[in-house]
Amino acid sequence: MRKAEKHLLVIFGASGDLTYRKLVPSVFDLYTQNLLPVNFGVLGLGRSKLSSEAFREKMKEGIKKFAGTTANKESMIDSFLEKLFYYSFDPEVKAEYEGFRDELEALNQKLDAGSNYIFYLATPPSLYPVVPANLAAYGLNREDKGFKRLIIEKPFGYDLESARKLNRKLQCNFKEDQIYRIDHYLGKETVQNMLVTRFANGIFEPLWNRNYIHHVEITSSEDIGVGSRGGYYDGSGALRDMVQNHLLLLTSLVAMEPPAVINADAMRNEMVKVLQSIRPIKEEEVEKYVIRGQYTASEIRGKMMKAYREEQGVDPQSRTETFVAMKFYIDNWRWAGVPFYIRTGKCLPTRVTEVVIHFNATPHHIFADNLQHVKTHNQLVLRIQPDEGILLKSAMKVPGAGFNVQDVNMDFHYSDLSNTYLPSAYERLLLDCMLGDATLYSRGDALEAAWQFVDPILKAWQNNPAIKVYGYPAGTWGPVESDELIEGVETWRYPCKNLVGDGEYCEL
Amino acid sequence: MRKAEKHLLVIFGASGDLTYRKLVPSVFDLYTQNLLPVNFGVLGLGRSKLSSEAFREKMKEGIKKFAGTTANKESMIDSFLEKLFYYSFDPEVKAEYEGFRDELEALNQKLDAGSNYIFYLATPPSLYPVVPANLAAYGLNREDKGFKRLIIEKPFGYDLESARKLNRKLQCNFKEDQIYRIDHYLGKETVQNMLVTRFANGIFEPLWNRNYIHHVEITSSEDIGVGSRGGYYDGSGALRDMVQNHLLLLTSLVAMEPPAVINADAMRNEMVKVLQSIRPIKEEEVEKYVIRGQYTASEIRGKMMKAYREEQGVDPQSRTETFVAMKFYIDNWRWAGVPFYIRTGKCLPTRVTEVVIHFNATPHHIFADNLQHVKTHNQLVLRIQPDEGILLKSAMKVPGAGFNVQDVNMDFHYSDLSNTYLPSAYERLLLDCMLGDATLYSRGDALEAAWQFVDPILKAWQNNPAIKVYGYPAGTWGPVESDELIEGVETWRYPCKNLVGDGEYCEL
Repeated sequence: MRKAEKHLLVIFGASGDLTYRKLVPSVFDLYTQNLLPVNFGVLGLGRSKLSSEAFREKMKEGIKKFAGTTANKESMIDSFLEKLFYYSFDPEVKAEYEGFRDELEALNQKLDAGSNYIFYLATPPSLYPVVPANLAAYGLNREDKGFKRLIIEKPFGYDLESARKLNRKLQCNFKEDQIYRIDHYLGKETVQNMLVTRFANGIFEPLWNRNYIHHVEITSSEDIGVGSRGGYYDGSGALRDMVQNHLLLLTSLVAMEPPAVINADAMRNEMVKVLQSIRPIKEEEVEKYVIRGQYTASEIRGKMMKAYREEQGVDPQSRTETFVAMKFYIDNWRWAGVPFYIRTGKCLPTRVTEVVIHFNATPHHIFADNLQHVKTHNQLVLRIQPDEGILLKSAMKVPGAGFNVQDVNMDFHYSDLSNTYLPSAYERLLLDCMLGDATLYSRGDALEAAWQFVDPILKAWQNNPAIKVYGYPAGTWGPVESDELIEGVETWRYPCKNLVGDGEYCEL
Repeated sequence: MRKAEKHLLVIFGASGDLTYRKLVPSVFDLYTQNLLPVNFGVLGLGRSKLSSEAFREKMKEGIKKFAGTTANKESMIDSFLEKLFYYSFDPEVKAEYEGFRDELEALNQKLDAGSNYIFYLATPPSLYPVVPANLAAYGLNREDKGFKRLIIEKPFGYDLESARKLNRKLQCNFKEDQIYRIDHYLGKETVQNMLVTRFANGIFEPLWNRNYIHHVEITSSEDIGVGSRGGYYDGSGALRDMVQNHLLLLTSLVAMEPPAVINADAMRNEMVKVLQSIRPIKEEEVEKYVIRGQYTASEIRGKMMKAYREEQGVDPQSRTETFVAMKFYIDNWRWAGVPFYIRTGKCLPTRVTEVVIHFNATPHHIFADNLQHVKTHNQLVLRIQPDEGILLKSAMKVPGAGFNVQDVNMDFHYSDLSNTYLPSAYERLLLDCMLGDATLYSRGDALEAAWQFVDPILKAWQNNPAIKVYGYPAGTWGPVESDELIEGVETWRYPCKNLVGDGEYCEL
């Protein structure tokens, strides 16, 4: 693996949770694998008054709790902590950037970091347009001496209009190739493996089209509720929180044409083409193609589960969806007529993210089972998490007389590989940004295309209160109405059963 | 599973090994699974003077040693033995058939078997033309009252001419649909599963042709020598013993077009088409396309292994092959230009029978590994024995930065199915014959087509002593020259390594 060039990683919002749980532990993991340059430092920024020492103490705790490689590397923590620094200022006040810039340049001198800076915005979204403008005002966007890169966390906009506005503001101050919009899903090994599965295997790509694929299903379920995020979540909902970014991103990887090469522009050109080819769901069609739901109270194995409306920070009359299932089409040569089903929700029976390719049955059925001709569909399951791997459901003979057919699974799990360290998403993505590789970051146009698809659905829900919000008991696979989206005799793949009895669905 | 109609199973050569080890234990297995009719009996025939009681005692021993289902069924042995009978006569003497017929009809009366008879020829091949003619002389081929079926063991002929002659003789006395030529390979679960794999999976059949398959490899290896069969084997050799029947049969299953239905004629029509499409290897091309070998002495983990020429019953100057590897083409629309490689031998490093489909690499390689573009070939391994199952070798991402590609295996083993009883080949085939289903038996024209392909090779070896017999040390994968058959950079798939060092090859 390539090592990063010398640089400083500058984190806005360094006293927050993301820095503590994800960013610094991931940087530590890169350090223990010898992937960081010698001339490197992390400068944490925040309003909280902290000394560098206090910052290091806190980060030490975060590393111990959350780093992936600590097991045999405890001895490396202290030398790593020497690379951490902290500076306190108010990033909303332009005038304060002068002091910050001087501090940054002094550190740059001290560590000989080549004036290469990565600015990581681990701040509330309200600061996304502010910080880059202020950085630009002090020339911290200019690459005449070293590189300047900007990493922005989600949520990237609240709807199409706000996303466009944000893009335009960012692009006033930074060039598109300096902007790294992070979607940690793309940092996941198994998401990247989808590309390898498709484009390094002679047998899958020939089948990967409307001639052989019956439908595609993508599920991302969580088995917990909103927890302490109720206040934020109630203003967002599953469509914005999961579909607009993660699930449409998975869709674009599943459906994209083979890129000419694996690099940022070739890849992202293909991904954006998919998003632009998704047939828009018009406001008046939303009821037909999209089912929204909200979890209600239930009892799972004697334990009472709160309803969403009872969660802390949530409006007791909230109509925010904690579940979305939808069906759509991709109007291009490869996918015309193939339905895509995507589904996400909170308080479902299990935590799983997977893509399921349902292949067509054989055109003619010669094997009879109890005199019934058997029609089996092959399925390829790409498991993103947990138990990362791949599973192919195929038909084999039932031992014994005749030719009875049964479905069996051929599978591969990453955990089968001895000695496999699966790097975390942040670890992978941070290293890529350090290397100047934006392949696994979202491009502005892709984000806008995703919003363009999602926007009419948001509008319809907002403008038409008659569109139902279906209640589903916590611990079930969402409203039964979501089953009716699926065409024909098929159903969703259920990795496990409902945890509570059926028949408790209701309309909210 | 369907139960057989009432009938008698009449075994010629009942005092022999096949009856003791395979036939009667398999019939017992059918009995314990309640697949035999109530009106059923086995009549063993032979020159040895045995009482029915003595025959039963001997069979009891065979059942205990070789039946698959004895574990919980010991209590059923005694009631089963009551269905066994023995009659002694000389099957070469036509006049003796009168007494035999009377005995048979008496037993038929006694058991109310509906005059349905299956005649199993577990005799030396010299009797194959004799017994059916004698049966016919006494009207035991006529189906006006009940069915009359004839099962014939291999070897079916010694070359094309003798096979044709035998077919013609049989067909004088029995109709083709009364003749069941057994090849126990077709009774194997995993051989039959090849049909299900191909024709019940939407994803394999579209790939199963020259557009996606690079080459096909079929290996059947044994890890033992000829043992006590040296006398017989030395007059036969690997080409007759394995290639003409088992390996060409596997080839025809791998390569056949989808039959319209699964029945004896539809299936066997397709199989014979494959055999007729194999491009003949002319006598003068044999050296180029066929490698023959003979095992020589070696030492494996301190144990001395005999050379073939030192085996009991083998001519010390023998040029009989104990190993054959060959390459051929199937000249039809599906397979034009795709090489088929088959290989079989004794005293190889392990016992395995498998079919390996080598798919083409992707047409374009976008993933670089250490700056080398990676070209991986998918392989589908259909494992016939042991460890029956299926394995798909595919390319997945190596966890970590970049897009490095590695080969991993997705697999399914029949042993993963809980509660799976894999019926033996004889069990399956006997039941099929009882049910009148000849699908898994060889048809006369298929056998002749296989001999037609093999015959010029036999002739070349016989007529041209300059064609080398390569020695290979027992415990290795045969002569290194067999590697050179394979086109390009590919090699055979080696399920395990040579057991002794290389560099000991020689010409005999």
